[in-house]
Amino acid sequence: MRNIKLTIEYDGTNYNGWQIQKNAPSIQEEIQKAIFQITKEKVTLIGSGRTDAGAHAKGQVANFITKSIIPEDKFVNALNSQLKGDIVIKHSEEKPIEFHSRYDAKSKIYSYTIHKGPVPPAITRQYVYHYRYGNLLCKEDLEKAAKNFIGTFDFKGFMSTGSSVKSTIRTIYDINIVEGEEVLKIFYHGSGFLYNMVRIITGTILNVGIGKIDLESIPTIIKSRERERAGQTVPAHGLCLEKVYY
Amino acid sequence: MRNIKLTIEYDGTNYNGWQIQKNAPSIQEEIQKAIFQITKEKVTLIGSGRTDAGAHAKGQVANFITKSIIPEDKFVNALNSQLKGDIVIKHSEEKPIEFHSRYDAKSKIYSYTIHKGPVPPAITRQYVYHYRYGNLLCKEDLEKAAKNFIGTFDFKGFMSTGSSVKSTIRTIYDINIVEGEEVLKIFYHGSGFLYNMVRIITGTILNVGIGKIDLESIPTIIKSRERERAGQTVPAHGLCLEKVYY
Repeated sequence: MRNIKLTIEYDGTNYNGWQIQKNAPSIQEEIQKAIFQITKEKVTLIGSGRTDAGAHAKGQVANFITKSIIPEDKFVNALNSQLKGDIVIKHSEEKPIEFHSRYDAKSKIYSYTIHKGPVPPAITRQYVYHYRYGNLLCKEDLEKAAKNFIGTFDFKGFMSTGSSVKSTIRTIYDINIVEGEEVLKIFYHGSGFLYNMVRIITGTILNVGIGKIDLESIPTIIKSRERERAGQTVPAHGLCLEKVYY
Repeated sequence: MRNIKLTIEYDGTNYNGWQIQKNAPSIQEEIQKAIFQITKEKVTLIGSGRTDAGAHAKGQVANFITKSIIPEDKFVNALNSQLKGDIVIKHSEEKPIEFHSRYDAKSKIYSYTIHKGPVPPAITRQYVYHYRYGNLLCKEDLEKAAKNFIGTFDFKGFMSTGSSVKSTIRTIYDINIVEGEEVLKIFYHGSGFLYNMVRIITGTILNVGIGKIDLESIPTIIKSRERERAGQTVPAHGLCLEKVYY
């Protein structure tokens, strides 16, 4: 038996998220079907984690166990020939049989892209969140707000209900904001993220940016562990899983 | 009567080009329908020029004559509320009644985006042309090739059949190549462009980039005025009308 690790890019627009489910298209199911086409095996593809309906990935990682004798790097073209263009295998390699995409993940980078122009964009509209108060935002204010989230905290207040986790403590190593012509892109590097955590932190940072939440109150909001005190959950389509580190 | 000038961004993926036609969706028709919704007038929307099926625009310009008393800048939100997200009005203003989007255009900027990564991208796949020999390209070679097209020439050899024009002489003022992580974006600023001219020049530049056409032979190819000697017409979805100058 061999353990194959895939690095995957996808446009999540037409999917109900990573995870396989009844009566709704998922990334996991599409790739499992493609694996079946080339190996005739019904594998379970283990992802590094779920991504939300409509969210994207440039560097999702997944692995599966196979008896196939296809050379490790040949899975890229073989699977891409079976997939539609909105899911692309970027890299494939054989790993030790113990390798597990989710358990072995050391940290992840997510990005969230905000469009701050006066009208929503037509081009790239499925990858950015058009924020209607974008003209009020300045990068420096957002950076000051973001700094408060760097460190190890109980992020219970920055989690949507609907997931069961043992601990709500996570570490954010770094948050970087890159400004483009009409966009602001926030990169989050962390040990792991709770359900909707990136989207809720982004909503909170935006609220600071428009003066709806005081910069000074962020530590108190984190400490309170109360979801109601944090900002709104910004839409999934601005979110992208950039990279998973092992 | 008033003359309203619109600046328009669109994702051309789901349209059969700018120009209205029977039995196929077009940008022009969608916007004319939106104008009808808000003014109850059946106007003819005059574009600065056609764009190909699948090609995009960040700065298409068009104008129409109306009796409407809607304030000039209010057409933006009024029309956007009627349009789907893949066509967006970015700016609207009243111009003198003589203003004509096509006849008055002084010059235009088009861009063509090439993806040179080993696998096609999933994200932004509808905006870039994945070139299978991308690993052979280097920006400097393409720039040397591009230089040959700057100036006033008879571009007859760089035009697809199917359009009737009085003259095939055009001036290219400048060509700039910008390199991104996995993309090369070529910007063309010219007095005007023949049918498929940007796509054929791009195909020719790419052929020089991979050594299929000699750099030194470009002036002879231009002078020959023979379509067969130029490169292939690269796909429409990498093309974007960036700006129209008046």
